[in-house]
Amino acid sequence: MAEAPSRGLADVVAASTALSDIDGRAGLLSYRGYDINELAGRATFEEIAYLLQRGSAPDAAQLDSYRAELAAGRRLGSLAAADLDGVARRQRPMEALRTLVSLSSADDPDTRSNERDANLRKAARLTAVQPVLIAAYQAAREGRKLPAADPALGTAANFLLQLTGARPGPRAAEILDTCLVLHADHTMNASTFAARVCAATLADMHSAVVAALGTLSGPLHGGANEQVMLTLETLRPAAGDPLEAVAAGTGERLAQGEKIMGFGHRVYKTEDPRAAHLRRMSAELAAASGDDTYYQMSRRMEEVVFAAKGLYPNVDFYAATVYHYLGIPTDLFTPVFSASRMAGWTAHVIEQHADNRLIRPDSEYIGERGLHWVPLDDR
Amino acid sequence: MAEAPSRGLADVVAASTALSDIDGRAGLLSYRGYDINELAGRATFEEIAYLLQRGSAPDAAQLDSYRAELAAGRRLGSLAAADLDGVARRQRPMEALRTLVSLSSADDPDTRSNERDANLRKAARLTAVQPVLIAAYQAAREGRKLPAADPALGTAANFLLQLTGARPGPRAAEILDTCLVLHADHTMNASTFAARVCAATLADMHSAVVAALGTLSGPLHGGANEQVMLTLETLRPAAGDPLEAVAAGTGERLAQGEKIMGFGHRVYKTEDPRAAHLRRMSAELAAASGDDTYYQMSRRMEEVVFAAKGLYPNVDFYAATVYHYLGIPTDLFTPVFSASRMAGWTAHVIEQHADNRLIRPDSEYIGERGLHWVPLDDR
Repeated sequence: MAEAPSRGLADVVAASTALSDIDGRAGLLSYRGYDINELAGRATFEEIAYLLQRGSAPDAAQLDSYRAELAAGRRLGSLAAADLDGVARRQRPMEALRTLVSLSSADDPDTRSNERDANLRKAARLTAVQPVLIAAYQAAREGRKLPAADPALGTAANFLLQLTGARPGPRAAEILDTCLVLHADHTMNASTFAARVCAATLADMHSAVVAALGTLSGPLHGGANEQVMLTLETLRPAAGDPLEAVAAGTGERLAQGEKIMGFGHRVYKTEDPRAAHLRRMSAELAAASGDDTYYQMSRRMEEVVFAAKGLYPNVDFYAATVYHYLGIPTDLFTPVFSASRMAGWTAHVIEQHADNRLIRPDSEYIGERGLHWVPLDDR
Repeated sequence: MAEAPSRGLADVVAASTALSDIDGRAGLLSYRGYDINELAGRATFEEIAYLLQRGSAPDAAQLDSYRAELAAGRRLGSLAAADLDGVARRQRPMEALRTLVSLSSADDPDTRSNERDANLRKAARLTAVQPVLIAAYQAAREGRKLPAADPALGTAANFLLQLTGARPGPRAAEILDTCLVLHADHTMNASTFAARVCAATLADMHSAVVAALGTLSGPLHGGANEQVMLTLETLRPAAGDPLEAVAAGTGERLAQGEKIMGFGHRVYKTEDPRAAHLRRMSAELAAASGDDTYYQMSRRMEEVVFAAKGLYPNVDFYAATVYHYLGIPTDLFTPVFSASRMAGWTAHVIEQHADNRLIRPDSEYIGERGLHWVPLDDR
């Protein structure tokens, strides 16, 4: 097959954005001009969602008001609530979220408007509801009632409360909050790009984030964090040294030309700045848990992959063990990512609608030409 | 705002495809090497869906077998059936289809596989079910029972039967069949591109077509046919000469710089070849209906727009009156388009998965730089 000039659109500029920027050589990521290294551990997810969606860091009054919007948005819509049990029983997590967010538009009074104020309200509601949908799905498949959200808690603490049914410790909530900050936006990644392609037809925000959710579900994108954990689980021996096992297993996979999930990135040529924060949090949670095996296996795998291929861990690699130590079920890792990225997706839809042009690329035709249609009877 | 080098990706080649090709200067469209002018009225939608999805025109045995797959696929899945009434009551047609197709993955035994054979089966099922979902939505909101499909009829005749509750005349079914042929694929349009961006993360076919459905819902894309009809309805006077009214109304809108829906296309520099077929079918149906007002108004609008702007009607313009004369409710025009384009979307997903690379473009950063995060208390 002939290669199109821009296969995969690598290095093609598809849109302008003021939301985030990557310096792939220096290993830098910034949100609206703020280096992620200044934000991790110092800014809350609510501040970052506000920053992305509304353009600047909120002052105290703005943040209070935005938190109140989020608190009001932490509830299932009536259609999503009605269909939850069937969906939880019959669809995998990312399929279920695609469905539940699609259903949620029915309860949003601003669904039909792409005006800026309507988009800001929808962005807050979608950011608020996404963790609730994930927790409701988990509760439904476990046959539990969804715990009520606590308006005194922020997004991360409520998320853990509703997901696990237990009030999280303050440090667990802080660490999840930092994870949500780290994953909130990342320039023109595939799901964000899908959201913008959708929004650029002047489709509504719910359609755009449903497109993004489907796109994030792919194993080459959001699905990678789950694959990392499954790999670690597979390589952990029932008996014997887990570090030797992970080194041997990783080496075998590399020798067979297999891709090791969680390493390398099309944009970063050095370490992904998010990985360093996630590695540190994974170490902390591992130590606190009393069983740091998966963390130590991850460190060993990182060494083996770097020695063999020169590849750095990406955002998915240490996110896997962080989520694991936080008690999040492995098949909800990609949904947790989506709860953070919802802030970025919605901000990109706002930005796209504010200065829109249809995104309609060309294609290169590589098939046959000049054929003549023969009626069925003569075929 | 600075212009990105490839704003809207106009003229950027985003993918290679053997499915369809456009010669925008000559006004030609072909599917796998067959000129659309040879196919319109001579090939059935089933043959075209097979051609696109499976690579070549089917022989009689292959077509029989494919028709049997489609007949087996003409049924609501259990989740979609369970949630239909609420969805029909609370969501607009394209929102509802986004939801119902997302629910449908639960009943597809191949949902989790991107293997070629699984994709072929899913493509047939999705192509079969889309008209059924539209008809079921219409029946539910009218409080009717969905008429059973007739396995002796093809896609177009079953669609009209299930949508209207009445067995269509043979010519109406033939004309809808030709419409489905004309809309089945169109290179890298926005919804098809969204489907490929999604599929390129190795997300599954249902996720990709849900992304495409959301993208098609935008008024700059699939929503245009509905807008054309609404414009004609608005301009039709309660009394007086409708042709004078449409000429005056169109002239006023043009003078105010308004976009007239249904004219012009980023790719065609001459008449869209599909428009000629749709114009002819609109004329035929108008004459048979005994009231050709909307057709004559369309002709007049075409003259006024061409004289003022040199723009040709696109595929949406005469599709509007064709669908109207076929008795299709105006807010189901875009869904009818989707029932045809499902053949192309699914074929593009098959093609993307067969030779995949992640689609991850760059973006141009146009925001502030080097800001320092001030803690909330000091802000």
